[in-house]
Amino acid sequence: MIKVGIIGATGYVGVELLRLLFNHNDVSTIAISSKTFKDKRISEIYENFSGIIDFVCEDEDMVIEKSDIIFGALPHGLSEGLAFKILKKEKKFIDIGADFRLKNEEDYEKWYKNKFNYKPLHEKSVYSIPEFHRNKVIEGNYSIISNPGCYPTSIALGIVPAIINNLVKENTLIIDSKSGVTGSGRGLSLSSHFVECNESMNAYAVGGVHRHTPEIEQIINEFSNNLVKITFTPHLIPINRGILSTIYFDLNKNTSIEDIHKLYINYYKDEFFIKILPLGSNAKIKNVTNSNYCNISIHKDERCNRVIICSVIDNMVKGAAGQAIQNMNLLLGIEENTGLKVLATAF
Amino acid sequence: MIKVGIIGATGYVGVELLRLLFNHNDVSTIAISSKTFKDKRISEIYENFSGIIDFVCEDEDMVIEKSDIIFGALPHGLSEGLAFKILKKEKKFIDIGADFRLKNEEDYEKWYKNKFNYKPLHEKSVYSIPEFHRNKVIEGNYSIISNPGCYPTSIALGIVPAIINNLVKENTLIIDSKSGVTGSGRGLSLSSHFVECNESMNAYAVGGVHRHTPEIEQIINEFSNNLVKITFTPHLIPINRGILSTIYFDLNKNTSIEDIHKLYINYYKDEFFIKILPLGSNAKIKNVTNSNYCNISIHKDERCNRVIICSVIDNMVKGAAGQAIQNMNLLLGIEENTGLKVLATAF
Amino acid sequence: MIKVGIIGATGYVGVELLRLLFNHNDVSTIAISSKTFKDKRISEIYENFSGIIDFVCEDEDMVIEKSDIIFGALPHGLSEGLAFKILKKEKKFIDIGADFRLKNEEDYEKWYKNKFNYKPLHEKSVYSIPEFHRNKVIEGNYSIISNPGCYPTSIALGIVPAIINNLVKENTLIIDSKSGVTGSGRGLSLSSHFVECNESMNAYAVGGVHRHTPEIEQIINEFSNNLVKITFTPHLIPINRGILSTIYFDLNKNTSIEDIHKLYINYYKDEFFIKILPLGSNAKIKNVTNSNYCNISIHKDERCNRVIICSVIDNMVKGAAGQAIQNMNLLLGIEENTGLKVLATAF
Amino acid sequence: MIKVGIIGATGYVGVELLRLLFNHNDVSTIAISSKTFKDKRISEIYENFSGIIDFVCEDEDMVIEKSDIIFGALPHGLSEGLAFKILKKEKKFIDIGADFRLKNEEDYEKWYKNKFNYKPLHEKSVYSIPEFHRNKVIEGNYSIISNPGCYPTSIALGIVPAIINNLVKENTLIIDSKSGVTGSGRGLSLSSHFVECNESMNAYAVGGVHRHTPEIEQIINEFSNNLVKITFTPHLIPINRGILSTIYFDLNKNTSIEDIHKLYINYYKDEFFIKILPLGSNAKIKNVTNSNYCNISIHKDERCNRVIICSVIDNMVKGAAGQAIQNMNLLLGIEENTGLKVLATAF
Repeated sequence: MIKVGIIGATGYVGVELLRLLFNHNDVSTIAISSKTFKDKRISEIYENFSGIIDFVCEDEDMVIEKSDIIFGALPHGLSEGLAFKILKKEKKFIDIGADFRLKNEEDYEKWYKNKFNYKPLHEKSVYSIPEFHRNKVIEGNYSIISNPGCYPTSIALGIVPAIINNLVKENTLIIDSKSGVTGSGRGLSLSSHFVECNESMNAYAVGGVHRHTPEIEQIINEFSNNLVKITFTPHLIPINRGILSTIYFDLNKNTSIEDIHKLYINYYKDEFFIKILPLGSNAKIKNVTNSNYCNISIHKDERCNRVIICSVIDNMVKGAAGQAIQNMNLLLGIEENTGLKVLATAF
Repeated sequence: MIKVGIIGATGYVGVELLRLLFNHNDVSTIAISSKTFKDKRISEIYENFSGIIDFVCEDEDMVIEKSDIIFGALPHGLSEGLAFKILKKEKKFIDIGADFRLKNEEDYEKWYKNKFNYKPLHEKSVYSIPEFHRNKVIEGNYSIISNPGCYPTSIALGIVPAIINNLVKENTLIIDSKSGVTGSGRGLSLSSHFVECNESMNAYAVGGVHRHTPEIEQIINEFSNNLVKITFTPHLIPINRGILSTIYFDLNKNTSIEDIHKLYINYYKDEFFIKILPLGSNAKIKNVTNSNYCNISIHKDERCNRVIICSVIDNMVKGAAGQAIQNMNLLLGIEENTGLKVLATAF
Repeated sequence: MIKVGIIGATGYVGVELLRLLFNHNDVSTIAISSKTFKDKRISEIYENFSGIIDFVCEDEDMVIEKSDIIFGALPHGLSEGLAFKILKKEKKFIDIGADFRLKNEEDYEKWYKNKFNYKPLHEKSVYSIPEFHRNKVIEGNYSIISNPGCYPTSIALGIVPAIINNLVKENTLIIDSKSGVTGSGRGLSLSSHFVECNESMNAYAVGGVHRHTPEIEQIINEFSNNLVKITFTPHLIPINRGILSTIYFDLNKNTSIEDIHKLYINYYKDEFFIKILPLGSNAKIKNVTNSNYCNISIHKDERCNRVIICSVIDNMVKGAAGQAIQNMNLLLGIEENTGLKVLATAF
Repeated sequence: MIKVGIIGATGYVGVELLRLLFNHNDVSTIAISSKTFKDKRISEIYENFSGIIDFVCEDEDMVIEKSDIIFGALPHGLSEGLAFKILKKEKKFIDIGADFRLKNEEDYEKWYKNKFNYKPLHEKSVYSIPEFHRNKVIEGNYSIISNPGCYPTSIALGIVPAIINNLVKENTLIIDSKSGVTGSGRGLSLSSHFVECNESMNAYAVGGVHRHTPEIEQIINEFSNNLVKITFTPHLIPINRGILSTIYFDLNKNTSIEDIHKLYINYYKDEFFIKILPLGSNAKIKNVTNSNYCNISIHKDERCNRVIICSVIDNMVKGAAGQAIQNMNLLLGIEENTGLKVLATAF
């Protein structure tokens, strides 16, 4: 049985982790930490836990002490130091923050205005979307797993099979993503104020300036011969959970939609969490809500020889806490979908 | 292991049953039936099941044949005949419809414009909110469980402890309930059309004419010495799931809020699914969403010697499919919360 | 032509005033003030005004100087001092804050933890829901109009005809109100955070502790022989605009619903903004959204001899800025509905 | 004073027309027709009109008889016959349907599976987005105005200045549009069922198969030397009103964002309803809701030399009823913005 710790347990991702881990059959104990709510019971902050999960938010060091594996759900810049502490105690770390995502330090400095302060730790970490990096995690003897961003997960799952099969014409990849408001976290801001989001919608960080951009390119370029540059535009939509990424690219050659569809089905044929929808279907957010699934629909604009991929995930589950647990399962040699078999609620 | 059948599997309640039963550890097989979608795969209708639950909607008789216990999620008037068929095959029936809810045939005729067509079956049925009728179900050797309506569940859980403790002054009970739109089902209607519900709210069936009224009074009067008459006003709110019932009554005597709070805590002290919130908290729908829990907050208007109880449930879970599974567990002697331990999503 | 000033112009009520006054035919100029956004253009804060209304937020004194009549949309405690300044300059003041609403200083102290600092000013002020206090405003030579709260407006319009006609049995008045989130203003708070409100609902300030309670009782008692005490429970609903008040009272005698309906129709027969819906209709928020109308539907629970009144307004218009303009029109002798004839958007 | 008729008055567009025309200073009378609700009062169907607009839905011929100018808000295939009748009576017709939008009969047959049944009428009709076709309407002596589709309006306003200035690289134009649910009309369908839309989002008609595609290309090609082909993907978002079109194109040359911004500002400098936002702003739907304005924000992905334009309108106003009134004003020589000066509600 596994003893789990969560650092940053009172943000939305931390709470989602707690909720999912609570029903994970191989987890025996959970310890939690929160700077903002130190010494408070989690059930005072999240009343859905009241009478069920009444853990107190403890000191970070105490949580590390009590745990075999620790999840970090912290703003960028805070995970590296945490990792250092955890590895000194010879425990495992799964980072849902951004510190270990970019391999190239220059990229990290450019996009996050920050340095690698514990450079050797990066050697011990592996970035993992399990569907692509499973073997690395299993075979690599890593102590740190860097859990991907929500947008990059939805996009990579939607585009990698096309990249691998060399379908994508150079410099034509455009990604128009739409995210629910949990993606902005629990921190108060005018852009997450009910009256401002509700009955509205807008793009933000337009023009390739969102921090997930280099992460998306990094994954794609892992599978590409050419250096791919993308345009990525995130949008905020007035729903709680879910990301829809609409991915556009020109075809390299005139591959039929049926063939593209087969390539995708074939690529993901053994994947528990990835579903390629029948041709003619449109991926809908509600069909993955509250689950770790990713639904993908495939479309072609015959008039322009252009492919459109719609990829949907729940940003809190497959885009954060669920994928982190999937990674934990992998790392610890547990069946990969343990604790994650819950179906989408659909309504 | 249990073989389960669902008749009326493609409505929202049927699908919620399917979703919950799929993760129920003691259920081995599920067979489903639907008049509207006969011979179709459920995953063609609900894409969240695609690649996971691909059962075909079969003939009703075939489903009964294959199952040990059958759930009915049908409009009123259709369950009695179904019960007859099921009992002839010596199987158990859990009815989420209304046919067996009212004990008094006159009430049924008055409110549902319908007769008891299979009168002897009503002797074999038991109406069960497990928190109140658990022993009856366990000891009674019933073949039919009549699962309560969504509004009556939220209201009974909120008011019964006050009734039992004789706190409620005669003829002062007023219940103002608010329900999400899943309560209106999957059938198309202008009142469930997105543009009509969204950014709006209204009462409906105002003036004591909603069919849940006699059911609510029936439960209350089970626990009351006097014959209680209530005013019940349902409202439609623009959310998918959840019911909030705000219950008002004048106090019989001047009991303090602390004492009332203690009575409630005491009454429900052994209940897994019922949480009495600390004084000062307000029950919120989101804290029970997607779970079988019921949260209750207790308030008093000292100026008027009047009590206000706020009771929240997820109408699809504790108000329908979840409670039906709770009843199945009871009937079959399985641990009562099996398959229902999922926490509220909270966001 | 009227020169208008708005103090507190960048909150939701201030902005709604600005929007409505901009299309008011008798208003020539508008000057605005805001502490938070001093020297900023309003169109930088509210982009819907961009290129159309580009006023700069000026100093309060400057705005008073430039205006004939000033609207205050400030938190309680700030209006009295403002009124003093305005009256010294011999200008008129319409206060959308709470400082002048309660006539009884003890009540004000009890509910607002504040004193009357400029007591003589209260003599010069009149509380006005135009449908009830029109003549006072016209004939009274007042310098200050105290504009009612949003909840009290929706409730008073719904209940006063019943009070006047002596229909309401003593101590049976219960009001269950539901408000959109604009009612909580533009200030950031967890309870107005999108993810917290959306797909949820809850009561707040339960038990007769909301500050609008004494204001509601004050209006009712203006028209009542007995001293009426009410129970008032506000709820937050996940929509932007609108209040629905569901009002319950026991009948004094057995008046028929048809007679009650006629009393209401008759009482409001000359009112432009009040609509008594036909029997059988349910008042819906969407039918008044973005308008100054109030729709009222009348219901009776024959089984309990109890009346239910549903009253809907747009909290930002009839509940705040619109009614304030209606009051301004009255005070200045302009036709009362000027600038307010816009119909509800309905969707 | 103008006498106006509306054929198809009880759909959402018809009702929006009615609402806006009711406050149009130059309109004296309005007559309405509806097949579905013949002889019913509009206020029985739309309670927001109750006591204010109580017109009865009359026979189509009667409405034509009574009116100088007639608006048609009918499904495609029904406007041509209506136009024939109207022109025989020597009256003017503004068609908000699709029958006169495509100039090329082959295109119409291909996309609408329908023929031009009254071919000569097409000579007498002019397609008009006033910002582009104003002079044609004024000078052309047309009897029929074909009012553009909602998506084409939002897109054309966003892209034409770039086309005219030859900024757009061939075959790189991709448009990702998001629309509120009023765009699907009042007719019941599962995709507009509250529970299905709410908390979800999806693309539809993906792959260049939406009927607005040829209309968008037709407008663009009016201003382009090359024959432009586009990829257009519409999405449904869970809000009532509004369209956001995110428009992507590769730059022909390396024009700076400042220069592009200036071109846009300059192009629209005399337009009342078009606002080019400052660089750095993101166009938000809420800032045009309930208004005839179109807000446009301009962005550049410097890494890919690609431009992103965000264009927002209210689909019911600038995308339908509002623009139709703007066209009526033009056709009748009234000031173009009459009846349309209402500001966006913003919340």
